[in-house]
Amino acid sequence: MSEKTACQRYESQVRSYCREFPVVFQRAGGPYMWDVAGRRYVDLLCGAGALNYGHNDPHISAALRDYLLSGGPVTSLDLYTVAKSRFVDRFVDVVLRPRGMDHVVQFPGPAGTLAVEAAIKLARKVTGRTNVVAFSGGFHGASLGSLALSSSPLLRRAAGTPLGAATILPYDDGSPAALEVLERMLQDRGGIDPPAALVVETVQGEGGLNAASAAWLSGVQRLARESGALFVVDDIQAGCGRTGSFFSFDGSDLRPDVVCLSKSLSGLGLPMAMVLIRRQLDAWQPGEHNGTFRGNNLAFVTAEAALDHWTDSGFLAHVDRLGAEVGGSLRELADAEPDGGARVAGRGLMSGLRFDRPGRADQLKRRLFARGVIAETSGGGQVLKFFPALTMTVAQWRETADLVGDAMTARRRPAAVLGA
Amino acid sequence: MSEKTACQRYESQVRSYCREFPVVFQRAGGPYMWDVAGRRYVDLLCGAGALNYGHNDPHISAALRDYLLSGGPVTSLDLYTVAKSRFVDRFVDVVLRPRGMDHVVQFPGPAGTLAVEAAIKLARKVTGRTNVVAFSGGFHGASLGSLALSSSPLLRRAAGTPLGAATILPYDDGSPAALEVLERMLQDRGGIDPPAALVVETVQGEGGLNAASAAWLSGVQRLARESGALFVVDDIQAGCGRTGSFFSFDGSDLRPDVVCLSKSLSGLGLPMAMVLIRRQLDAWQPGEHNGTFRGNNLAFVTAEAALDHWTDSGFLAHVDRLGAEVGGSLRELADAEPDGGARVAGRGLMSGLRFDRPGRADQLKRRLFARGVIAETSGGGQVLKFFPALTMTVAQWRETADLVGDAMTARRRPAAVLGA
Amino acid sequence: MSEKTACQRYESQVRSYCREFPVVFQRAGGPYMWDVAGRRYVDLLCGAGALNYGHNDPHISAALRDYLLSGGPVTSLDLYTVAKSRFVDRFVDVVLRPRGMDHVVQFPGPAGTLAVEAAIKLARKVTGRTNVVAFSGGFHGASLGSLALSSSPLLRRAAGTPLGAATILPYDDGSPAALEVLERMLQDRGGIDPPAALVVETVQGEGGLNAASAAWLSGVQRLARESGALFVVDDIQAGCGRTGSFFSFDGSDLRPDVVCLSKSLSGLGLPMAMVLIRRQLDAWQPGEHNGTFRGNNLAFVTAEAALDHWTDSGFLAHVDRLGAEVGGSLRELADAEPDGGARVAGRGLMSGLRFDRPGRADQLKRRLFARGVIAETSGGGQVLKFFPALTMTVAQWRETADLVGDAMTARRRPAAVLGA
Amino acid sequence: MSEKTACQRYESQVRSYCREFPVVFQRAGGPYMWDVAGRRYVDLLCGAGALNYGHNDPHISAALRDYLLSGGPVTSLDLYTVAKSRFVDRFVDVVLRPRGMDHVVQFPGPAGTLAVEAAIKLARKVTGRTNVVAFSGGFHGASLGSLALSSSPLLRRAAGTPLGAATILPYDDGSPAALEVLERMLQDRGGIDPPAALVVETVQGEGGLNAASAAWLSGVQRLARESGALFVVDDIQAGCGRTGSFFSFDGSDLRPDVVCLSKSLSGLGLPMAMVLIRRQLDAWQPGEHNGTFRGNNLAFVTAEAALDHWTDSGFLAHVDRLGAEVGGSLRELADAEPDGGARVAGRGLMSGLRFDRPGRADQLKRRLFARGVIAETSGGGQVLKFFPALTMTVAQWRETADLVGDAMTARRRPAAVLGA
Repeated sequence: MSEKTACQRYESQVRSYCREFPVVFQRAGGPYMWDVAGRRYVDLLCGAGALNYGHNDPHISAALRDYLLSGGPVTSLDLYTVAKSRFVDRFVDVVLRPRGMDHVVQFPGPAGTLAVEAAIKLARKVTGRTNVVAFSGGFHGASLGSLALSSSPLLRRAAGTPLGAATILPYDDGSPAALEVLERMLQDRGGIDPPAALVVETVQGEGGLNAASAAWLSGVQRLARESGALFVVDDIQAGCGRTGSFFSFDGSDLRPDVVCLSKSLSGLGLPMAMVLIRRQLDAWQPGEHNGTFRGNNLAFVTAEAALDHWTDSGFLAHVDRLGAEVGGSLRELADAEPDGGARVAGRGLMSGLRFDRPGRADQLKRRLFARGVIAETSGGGQVLKFFPALTMTVAQWRETADLVGDAMTARRRPAAVLGA
Repeated sequence: MSEKTACQRYESQVRSYCREFPVVFQRAGGPYMWDVAGRRYVDLLCGAGALNYGHNDPHISAALRDYLLSGGPVTSLDLYTVAKSRFVDRFVDVVLRPRGMDHVVQFPGPAGTLAVEAAIKLARKVTGRTNVVAFSGGFHGASLGSLALSSSPLLRRAAGTPLGAATILPYDDGSPAALEVLERMLQDRGGIDPPAALVVETVQGEGGLNAASAAWLSGVQRLARESGALFVVDDIQAGCGRTGSFFSFDGSDLRPDVVCLSKSLSGLGLPMAMVLIRRQLDAWQPGEHNGTFRGNNLAFVTAEAALDHWTDSGFLAHVDRLGAEVGGSLRELADAEPDGGARVAGRGLMSGLRFDRPGRADQLKRRLFARGVIAETSGGGQVLKFFPALTMTVAQWRETADLVGDAMTARRRPAAVLGA
Repeated sequence: MSEKTACQRYESQVRSYCREFPVVFQRAGGPYMWDVAGRRYVDLLCGAGALNYGHNDPHISAALRDYLLSGGPVTSLDLYTVAKSRFVDRFVDVVLRPRGMDHVVQFPGPAGTLAVEAAIKLARKVTGRTNVVAFSGGFHGASLGSLALSSSPLLRRAAGTPLGAATILPYDDGSPAALEVLERMLQDRGGIDPPAALVVETVQGEGGLNAASAAWLSGVQRLARESGALFVVDDIQAGCGRTGSFFSFDGSDLRPDVVCLSKSLSGLGLPMAMVLIRRQLDAWQPGEHNGTFRGNNLAFVTAEAALDHWTDSGFLAHVDRLGAEVGGSLRELADAEPDGGARVAGRGLMSGLRFDRPGRADQLKRRLFARGVIAETSGGGQVLKFFPALTMTVAQWRETADLVGDAMTARRRPAAVLGA
Repeated sequence: MSEKTACQRYESQVRSYCREFPVVFQRAGGPYMWDVAGRRYVDLLCGAGALNYGHNDPHISAALRDYLLSGGPVTSLDLYTVAKSRFVDRFVDVVLRPRGMDHVVQFPGPAGTLAVEAAIKLARKVTGRTNVVAFSGGFHGASLGSLALSSSPLLRRAAGTPLGAATILPYDDGSPAALEVLERMLQDRGGIDPPAALVVETVQGEGGLNAASAAWLSGVQRLARESGALFVVDDIQAGCGRTGSFFSFDGSDLRPDVVCLSKSLSGLGLPMAMVLIRRQLDAWQPGEHNGTFRGNNLAFVTAEAALDHWTDSGFLAHVDRLGAEVGGSLRELADAEPDGGARVAGRGLMSGLRFDRPGRADQLKRRLFARGVIAETSGGGQVLKFFPALTMTVAQWRETADLVGDAMTARRRPAAVLGA
């Protein structure tokens, strides 16, 4: 296993997931990955949401190969290219126009955190204010601007400097007071500087699969409007189909001023991010936000191909079906936990199980890995997260759910696999 | 030209390069790009330094196609993969070990700015200090942490909030006092908070192709050591061969604690960044810096293939030859400018011409575009930048240099091409 | 009225109270002030709490005159002086020892805001943390460090720069959820950086005479302890007898790590401030906080004299009696407001009336001024504040209360007095 | 010596000067102080510049006693009072009008640091910028806003949080490059955010008696104008006569937009501060900066009396004479130091000796104290500072200078006085 050795010897201690799943992956397809020993794993981590269409989706992958053979430019800053134009055109047709969204698109660089950085810069520019409101349990990225909006104590501490010009307010906890406290704090004498933006995730993945209610989200939108702030939805993880529809807020009354997208946007897992900006708020001067990899033509090509899924009624019906199936399984699994110690968390295909017993989720993560299932915990280790590929078949899911059930009822974990 | 229309209609006003070179690119190979009308352009912009090996380098491109066909995972967070291990192994063999560098590597996300963000976080963590020193004219990225180290007034203003915990000191201007003022400011009573790091570019690309002297750089390294700060070289643009050697500081006495790489690292223009950290400074705790696209396996594969160039004596000899050729041409071109109004700027293949006459560089940029050459200005519009592909043949360069000479002596620009 | 003219012509527009009470004061004694026309005013503003013993208290004033005649040093930095030693000794005897408080004293400069600046510096030093928690509606001073803890939108905006490293959380609003939201936000994943201190006023004067409940304050103290933060009581306005006891938290279970005092500390209205620091938290290095006017010997002398009141059983009984009287009057006055539109606000001799009707408090302020009573509004203009001198006789108070009643029932304000 | 004990036992470790001069002072007059043992000291510390007229100046002291007997209000927020009006009127007559200065006055609170806080707030408000430029070696106060402009590493570290929105640039060091580096850094691409203000001391007291040249100061004023920043002179220590004229910049071409005054402004050492604001820059809204002790009527009275000195030709002639005398003595003393190891530092009556030998200044401070002279060091211990009272007679100075000479030539320090 010399491949692992190389990383262990030469890669920084900052590496993290590989400590939980200490094998070397070589091949991947659909919902599965295979390690160098040929062992198969069901991937419920899905690139932390970057692989909603599964690994190496044949349609998307073919588009990429074709483009490479055509000799198209690979990277192009923000020059006009055919690949970019086609993607933009298609995105408007498939996503924006049907929803009546008159937003322009910005390519802020190849990472989700850069979409958030651009969004808050723009909000500050538009409003002339500096403060940005985000919410307890949220995660928006690890660069300094986004980090100021994120709640992870580990990551915040690692900034090594106070994270300025942001206010964290409590996220929806299901109580009726959840919105009241926001109202109170955002009042004139609440002590919070008038915000440039309220930045919210509709479901907090890293924060523990907290799904905000429609009413709370609607209230946040209202408070943004009332306080003269932009209403920004960070749909980087929950968007691109993860909750069952393209945007996580489809079907709601939310009309965000700005939407941040990344992760599964390219369809194949290529680095790509995009900011949607209500047209009349597009106050950018040319070049005010830049970066080398804003023109990732390979990602434009795959992202365009990925959009084909969203005009395919078969795909849409399957996602609905799979979502229902996952929901049903999780309820059954939760019910099977002794003493009512588990509840379903999250929404759509961004779901999981929240356990009362400390250490339970981590125990199950290890047991599942031993059974060939990769699933992470979040929310401080209380929640076991399942991010199945949207293209997973119902049968594949059921087989996986059985493995989860098996892990939950196992007396002990099976013979240990592999050291870190 | 519907492709352009789509971007013009739906892309944010923030777009910039496309306003200078308003055509739609469709194909690219080696030093050339072709627009949808089939017109060929010599690309001296080279993705702002991300395409040092030219467009679609056959060897690198083949490695990517092979990998795609093999079904390897595309994106993998920071899990171990074969592609990543092989790249790391090869990078150690080809780059680090021969230079006696005992550095570990960190993949901080797919953009250069994220390498800088990670580097300054680490420096703050290691030293327990918050302040970071950077230099006038520098550019390190557009996310909030990196932006605090960058000098562009346009970009800084766009932050919309004060950029904290950084001190900008004067860059080498060739005067003997250039180092003295740093010494004085970094003294105990200079008023600058003790820095966690001194972050320097050996050649400032965006700042106007300012090349620091070896003595000044060495002095900066010494001051970093004396003040207990990390010495960080941002080699994102000047590295990966741009100045003629892999690192821009090869052959000097610089031994950076931390090196930031990105741009041409992947060889093909895929989004990728890397931080090299002196092993004993690798104080990261697992997961303290994260991001979805840290495991871009396509980039690992192409980056590994790109390293093959650096073990190819033919390539190395060609780069030397081309560098000499470019240097010679630029001196001739500078001499040809009336009234001694031009000087060669920069170093190696990161060179250009600095003009005294206001507007001259911009005039030439337009004339060159009309002649099928893409070259940008920098340094507030005073400098015309030439970033030729390292793989450009000498003949191709000479032909290009002739076009520059022609543009410089033209009575007027030829019939205008294309509106914005 | 040339005196007014001088100020109007040569003093900055920043002046404020003088616009509300546009006369020129010449003489003052006990609860009264007289203007240059000889008109008498009952002073319920009391120097915003700096004149708890009334104007020119004879005992205190005599001590000052004696000191001046003795030729003692007036200002002495932080050198040892007899005046300072005697005050410190007496303060320990009269205030600290009887309460079992083993605190050391710091003289941080002559203004309350400097006590807060010193307190938060010390808390940051002791804990190694930067964030400081304060509360909605609070006011702690107008210098940059204190301002970050204050809620006034007018003052915060005037900072002209983001106010860093502070988190404002909701103050007690009487609801059971008031403490819960604090608990939630201060949890590990609440998103708030671990605080160095929780800084609280037991009664918020500027914020609208909000008096926190004992349970909430106790909860805040507990949360400070649990989160490893210092528990700091800003008793600058509420202390020195304003709520009826020397500290506003006497008789409660609050045991603050740090207490900030100023305003009435000197007894006569001389600029003076003091920080009480639990002995084992006195982590200051010599000279880490400085300032010219830390050694105001005139104030040491008057402050020592002022402490005599607190060993005088007659004074203590009077303060109790007056407090009861004020409380009774305010309840009657509140009841007299039509439609139940008024409620008593505050605590002890830091009380007032909160009106539902917008503009009502300001109307009454004007009517009272016309009747020779000076009283301010606060809390965004909803609350009419009464800060009677503790030395006011019951008869003087009753007469004043009658004037308030008269103003409340007046059909119209009497003939206008004096323009601004 | 129970008085010392009280402070040693109950005062915070932050105390500093008293460790150098560990006696308890009881009486003071003119240039002298007496300790409780009746020992006399020549005071060359002069309250760090707050006692320019010496201790208990009879004329000023009498004015205070008269006011106290008249029953005038002591403290009055920013209400109009007779005492304030008279001072303002007199200040305009004696100081502003003769210099053609059309400035309004602001009373920002009783400490110099609050004058600086107010000045930079105003500059930010007027310009809409956040950055403020100050200079290496400067000291402007210990509250957070002023501290960001100060160079002391001890004090900056004690802030416990990064000090934002300020840029420290090099102070005049006598080299021709001193101004050039400022010009370069303040250029558009220097990397420094456009400043709201340049804040400068004409002589740096705490920084080591560095006296800037007229040319450099004039250049700073020009750069402020060119960069659209306010030109602010912090004359808190150097003003009110310390350099021999009322303002330290009298007789120069400096026309500051804003001047900060404090320390000796009240004449008697009472806490007082004032900001002079060019009338057309008085952009304050009412109440945007506040504080309890803005209306220190005792200080208004003594400050008015102090101004009488400046209309007294005898006083003015004496100050000139004393300045010449001090200058002469210091040159002689410097010459007497072996190996040319001393130079005169500072300007006017804000002068001292800078020694090459490490520890020399501190040695002399101790020897002088043993001889009954109180003088501090500054500039990191290299400079021995002499701040004689302006009212000191020439004979008193000569006697003092002899003691300095004696200390410099002493073989050893005399029998030690007093422990700390």
